[in-house]
Amino acid sequence: MASAAILPELATQVLIPVAAAVGIAFAVLQWLLVSKVRLSPEGRADGGAGKSGPSDYLIEEEEGLNDHNVVLKCAEIQSAISEGATSFLFTEYKYVGLFMSIFAILIFLFLGSVEGFSTKSQPCHYTKDKTCKPALANAIFSTIAFVLGAVTSLVSGFLGMKIATYANARTTLEARKGVGKAFITAFRSGAVMGFLLAASGLLVLYIAINLFGIYYGDDWEGLFEAITGYGLGGSSMALFGRVGGGIYTKAADVGADLVGKVERNIPEDDPRNPAVIADNVGDNVGDIAGMGSDLFGSYAESSCAALVVASISSFGINLEFTPMMYPLLVSSMGIIGCLITTLFATDFFEIKTVNEIEPALKKQLIISTVVMTIGIALVSWLGLPYTFTIFNFGVQKTVQSWQLFLCVAVGLWAGLIIGFVTEYYTSNAYGPVQDVADSCRTGAATNVIFGLALGYKSVIIPIFAIAFSIFLSFSLAAMYGVAVAALGMLSTIATGLAIDAYGPISDNAGGIAEMAGMSHRIRERTDALDAAGNTTAAIGKGFAIGSAALVSLALFGAFVSRAAISTVDVLTPKVFIGLIVGAMLPYWFSAMTMKSVGSAALKMVEEVRRQFNTIPGLMEGTTKPDYATCVKISTDASIKEMIPPGALVMLTPLIVGILFGVETLSGVLAGALVSGVQIAISASNTGGAWDNAKKYIEAGASEHARTLGPKGSDPHKAAVIGDTIGDPLKDTSGPSLNILIKLMAVESLVFAPFFATHGGILFKWF
Amino acid sequence: MASAAILPELATQVLIPVAAAVGIAFAVLQWLLVSKVRLSPEGRADGGAGKSGPSDYLIEEEEGLNDHNVVLKCAEIQSAISEGATSFLFTEYKYVGLFMSIFAILIFLFLGSVEGFSTKSQPCHYTKDKTCKPALANAIFSTIAFVLGAVTSLVSGFLGMKIATYANARTTLEARKGVGKAFITAFRSGAVMGFLLAASGLLVLYIAINLFGIYYGDDWEGLFEAITGYGLGGSSMALFGRVGGGIYTKAADVGADLVGKVERNIPEDDPRNPAVIADNVGDNVGDIAGMGSDLFGSYAESSCAALVVASISSFGINLEFTPMMYPLLVSSMGIIGCLITTLFATDFFEIKTVNEIEPALKKQLIISTVVMTIGIALVSWLGLPYTFTIFNFGVQKTVQSWQLFLCVAVGLWAGLIIGFVTEYYTSNAYGPVQDVADSCRTGAATNVIFGLALGYKSVIIPIFAIAFSIFLSFSLAAMYGVAVAALGMLSTIATGLAIDAYGPISDNAGGIAEMAGMSHRIRERTDALDAAGNTTAAIGKGFAIGSAALVSLALFGAFVSRAAISTVDVLTPKVFIGLIVGAMLPYWFSAMTMKSVGSAALKMVEEVRRQFNTIPGLMEGTTKPDYATCVKISTDASIKEMIPPGALVMLTPLIVGILFGVETLSGVLAGALVSGVQIAISASNTGGAWDNAKKYIEAGASEHARTLGPKGSDPHKAAVIGDTIGDPLKDTSGPSLNILIKLMAVESLVFAPFFATHGGILFKWF
Repeated sequence: MASAAILPELATQVLIPVAAAVGIAFAVLQWLLVSKVRLSPEGRADGGAGKSGPSDYLIEEEEGLNDHNVVLKCAEIQSAISEGATSFLFTEYKYVGLFMSIFAILIFLFLGSVEGFSTKSQPCHYTKDKTCKPALANAIFSTIAFVLGAVTSLVSGFLGMKIATYANARTTLEARKGVGKAFITAFRSGAVMGFLLAASGLLVLYIAINLFGIYYGDDWEGLFEAITGYGLGGSSMALFGRVGGGIYTKAADVGADLVGKVERNIPEDDPRNPAVIADNVGDNVGDIAGMGSDLFGSYAESSCAALVVASISSFGINLEFTPMMYPLLVSSMGIIGCLITTLFATDFFEIKTVNEIEPALKKQLIISTVVMTIGIALVSWLGLPYTFTIFNFGVQKTVQSWQLFLCVAVGLWAGLIIGFVTEYYTSNAYGPVQDVADSCRTGAATNVIFGLALGYKSVIIPIFAIAFSIFLSFSLAAMYGVAVAALGMLSTIATGLAIDAYGPISDNAGGIAEMAGMSHRIRERTDALDAAGNTTAAIGKGFAIGSAALVSLALFGAFVSRAAISTVDVLTPKVFIGLIVGAMLPYWFSAMTMKSVGSAALKMVEEVRRQFNTIPGLMEGTTKPDYATCVKISTDASIKEMIPPGALVMLTPLIVGILFGVETLSGVLAGALVSGVQIAISASNTGGAWDNAKKYIEAGASEHARTLGPKGSDPHKAAVIGDTIGDPLKDTSGPSLNILIKLMAVESLVFAPFFATHGGILFKWF
Repeated sequence: MASAAILPELATQVLIPVAAAVGIAFAVLQWLLVSKVRLSPEGRADGGAGKSGPSDYLIEEEEGLNDHNVVLKCAEIQSAISEGATSFLFTEYKYVGLFMSIFAILIFLFLGSVEGFSTKSQPCHYTKDKTCKPALANAIFSTIAFVLGAVTSLVSGFLGMKIATYANARTTLEARKGVGKAFITAFRSGAVMGFLLAASGLLVLYIAINLFGIYYGDDWEGLFEAITGYGLGGSSMALFGRVGGGIYTKAADVGADLVGKVERNIPEDDPRNPAVIADNVGDNVGDIAGMGSDLFGSYAESSCAALVVASISSFGINLEFTPMMYPLLVSSMGIIGCLITTLFATDFFEIKTVNEIEPALKKQLIISTVVMTIGIALVSWLGLPYTFTIFNFGVQKTVQSWQLFLCVAVGLWAGLIIGFVTEYYTSNAYGPVQDVADSCRTGAATNVIFGLALGYKSVIIPIFAIAFSIFLSFSLAAMYGVAVAALGMLSTIATGLAIDAYGPISDNAGGIAEMAGMSHRIRERTDALDAAGNTTAAIGKGFAIGSAALVSLALFGAFVSRAAISTVDVLTPKVFIGLIVGAMLPYWFSAMTMKSVGSAALKMVEEVRRQFNTIPGLMEGTTKPDYATCVKISTDASIKEMIPPGALVMLTPLIVGILFGVETLSGVLAGALVSGVQIAISASNTGGAWDNAKKYIEAGASEHARTLGPKGSDPHKAAVIGDTIGDPLKDTSGPSLNILIKLMAVESLVFAPFFATHGGILFKWF
């Protein structure tokens, strides 16, 4: 236990901000490269000729490069999408801001009241012989951390959206030059978001720790308890982003499809469809901004969970800065590792045909995992003492640095396995999706039955992977092990986000191509990008869910420690009722979000039908539809409908903690975790599979696929129904569930001192 | 603790078999009343005139009474259905018999090996100062009890099926005389099954206890441990009955609907549809035989769970026979209470219009609950000492008789609440189903989204009701309280089964009316009976699931005690991985069963299409289809497909127990319980809602319903798709899940001594 980390404190103090700075610089570089694609007809020739040389223009498959009108039209559509997205996000932020302010006050009041707003220092909670800062300081700094987390999450999501809407028309224009060019543009834009988010999340956390440290001094226990507010802020924002964005995007998507594709028989993204702009806006506010906030939340929470456990372990007790910062060092290394990985996609290899897209994205996953395995081995060797102790529910457990390496590595590799399994179940290159497509032969009903069964089945291996990671990391290093396993899974977050954001950008690019009336060949290229994007989106969701499961468990463990519960025994009535009610919450939440999408979609359908019926010349394409009304319907619906599910998640820990106390709350957290993770995985894979089954029939790339097609055939119609049902599952209720489980856990952790002091009033009364 | 029960042992010894005999006599009486409806044209006039007097023939709405051909045709169809069902069940029993034999040998070997097949008596497990029979005796008697339970379950299911197929054509014929007559025939037949099952379950258990007692003497601990095999046998049989029957019925139903209703546009149950006989057979083997075995299993298990806990409480230690038999006394009282309740439906009131059907069935629920509340108060007063102690994980807890009354009562009333909530969410008289029907306006996709959301939402109140029952009964009387709460919920089993079996009988009656070419008015009457039957079927499933949750928890508690685990702490890696993997099992299981239904339905579709395409004159109705091939497809598919899900459930506890040990197994049981109960409730309510949304549109009973219809309209087509998707959810995967959770728990309980001695080899090795 006497050994120290090889890396001195000063080096750590330098390395972390430098890694963050490198990440931000790399993001800016990628953005500059994307910006070279000019969105004005004059600039195009310059931009193209200026840097890449005229050879670009000699590729055989170039198409329609000199049509200036198309460029203008793309620019116009892009700005409509960008405006819609910006306006929605601002409206959303207004409401969320109000909610956050109230919640910040609650945090301050609840935590401040623990010791009656006393300003006197107290003996520490865990190391009783030390003196810690008063509960009031915890209240103030937790509130500040909460606001900081919320703002960082908000900015991350917003910037991601801005970049995505900046890149979508550029991707469309590049598709004229070939699928490889388009791919790189979309992928680079995704990378901008990935690196910006990973780096800024790290930087803000680092700065906050150092600034809070000025006040807290040697009281690391208090410092890192206050820091947990950062995770709560990030995740609360993510909840509203995911739910609001999810309802927005799917109300528009479902509404547009139901009238456009099903009733009017016009293609997807046809400019005559009044809901088409809203649909494209939705991709950016839901899949980009929502996803960004979500993964940022996971990152912030797993860091906080690890830090709070570390602060009461030997690192914290002995004030060893470098090992204390181990979670941030892992993330720093993650930025460097992902940077190397990205070069493989953008510089070392080039994509020439559509078949190479999915393998290229898959390679990103593998490369980043291999690179990071080496990276974390290095960090574990340099950043940790050879032997140290970890707090394990009241006792200190001795751990060796290589064991902690194993914890991080098992999370990292479990992420890869989850990614591969998700790909297997959602890509139309494999049997499962092809079976689902085949079941469309007998109609929509069998399609739905097979799709639901596929989603259920796709849960099996990820759960075993998660269970194995938990078992290994938990056995080796208790809750700290689980927290760093989550960090391991998230260490490739920059790459994960890049390939994830790539999806909606390609989807939008396809939409813009259709709306700008570009040729069939270009639409085929963007469709190929998009099909790969569906799979990567499912993979991204798999990561988000897997890491959420680990993070929640780590937060849950930290909560239990902080609430001074020694065991969470299922065989006590208080815990068991929590467990079964907790397992029910994901269903309640999903019922709300799905019903919201359904109702909002119905409103959208009415409006789209009304426009088709009352605007003369709309079907003929001579009049423009009224896009703005559809945008407004989606905006209003999502703002209104995000409140009840949001309140359910935010209020449950408070109500349970105050009325029933910490034991029941532990049960609720465990129940929601083990039940929610299953629904989340199955919902997002079912949805992804239906979407790609439809694309499989549409693309008609194999003999089998052609027997099911073409577009408009009965099996295709059945596939469209499945796709529509899958929309809310995969983009609204499924991915929101991982926020549900994380958020309830982190909220319980932040409020733990309050619940432990004043909670459980129902049981106290009776 | 010195007080004794008021009821002497002799009275108890008389009362229980007498109650069982009364139940059986009542069942025979009901059967005699049903048998008066003659299925031969000659006998009709006699039967009618003979007892009920000629006034029966004067009811205004009589229709087609003198058409002798119709009677012959009904008899012919009925015998085809009965033959198909009998032949399937015999095939099923052959395979299940083989499996059961192997499993019986396993039980003997595993339990016998606990003390190396020693024949020497050992000190008791709980009361160390006493001497108990050797583990070998436990092995032998557990095996016998297992076989006894399996055979009783098998006979219950088989007799239920026989009675149902005896009654369906009779219901059709009575429908000519009016809806009231038809209702009474269907309901009486249901009652035959309900009372026969409740009474024989009680009687066999009572006899087994007395016979085993001859050997065991004063070793009640050993006696009642061996008796748990009865629950395991009952539930194992139920698993195969539910899964096999569920796959059978839904493969036929989905297959028949997909070609008949969707492609060929012929009505449901049209005799031209080759799968129509298979469909009707399926109702009897799935909903009747499967349901019967399932509820019998719940009953047997909750009795066993209560008895095994009681045997190590003061009743067992002090050898107090009457309070020891309290669970059986509650069931005895249940038979009497249900008998009184039944009279309200068959004799005290008469149904005259279709609107009175659902209220009449609902009244059955309320009356039985009220009557039984008084009944159990009486039993608790007479059958229990005023104060006694209950074993609570290592310590004895003092309980008063009125507290135990509260435990039973809370289970009973929670059952009623679950019943009402289920009715609210699945009956088309209320908003939720009407909303789902309304969403069909925009197509199948919104219908599915709304239906899934409805199912998720319908989980909330039942879970709160279950959680409250658990909390109260657990707090008052530990696991014994939970077990008797389950018994309370099941005390009205005879009535529950009667209204449950009523559904498929009415469904079949409608099918027979259609196939026999009876008039539109008669079909309307049977349809009304059937719509009410859908709701009662959902209520029955609600009861089955609610009681399964309580039973499983009680069995789980008994397992934990027997496996000598003191706490099941979620915050240990062994338990947590069990919890999350356990929560995944219901998904795995559902994936298997749904995929099975889908694949079998595809085969059925191919065959039905082939017959329509190749048999000349089939569509015109001049040639008969080849029903037998369709029956064979369903039979083969269900036999083949029931093995993997069956093996999953039966092997999981064995594998987990042997490899990972009792702690992980505890986690698995808790996880499967809290996750499975949610999916089970939501799946069966979603399915029920879709079915009734379709019926709502078809019936067109309100202004709103008429805007969605008529049959064949686009909203109706969308509703048919939802109905088809719901079929495997509500009749295969959903209801099988409650067997999954119960069976894994009871199996763990039976094998507990083996796991505790030889289990967890993986952890022992590493």
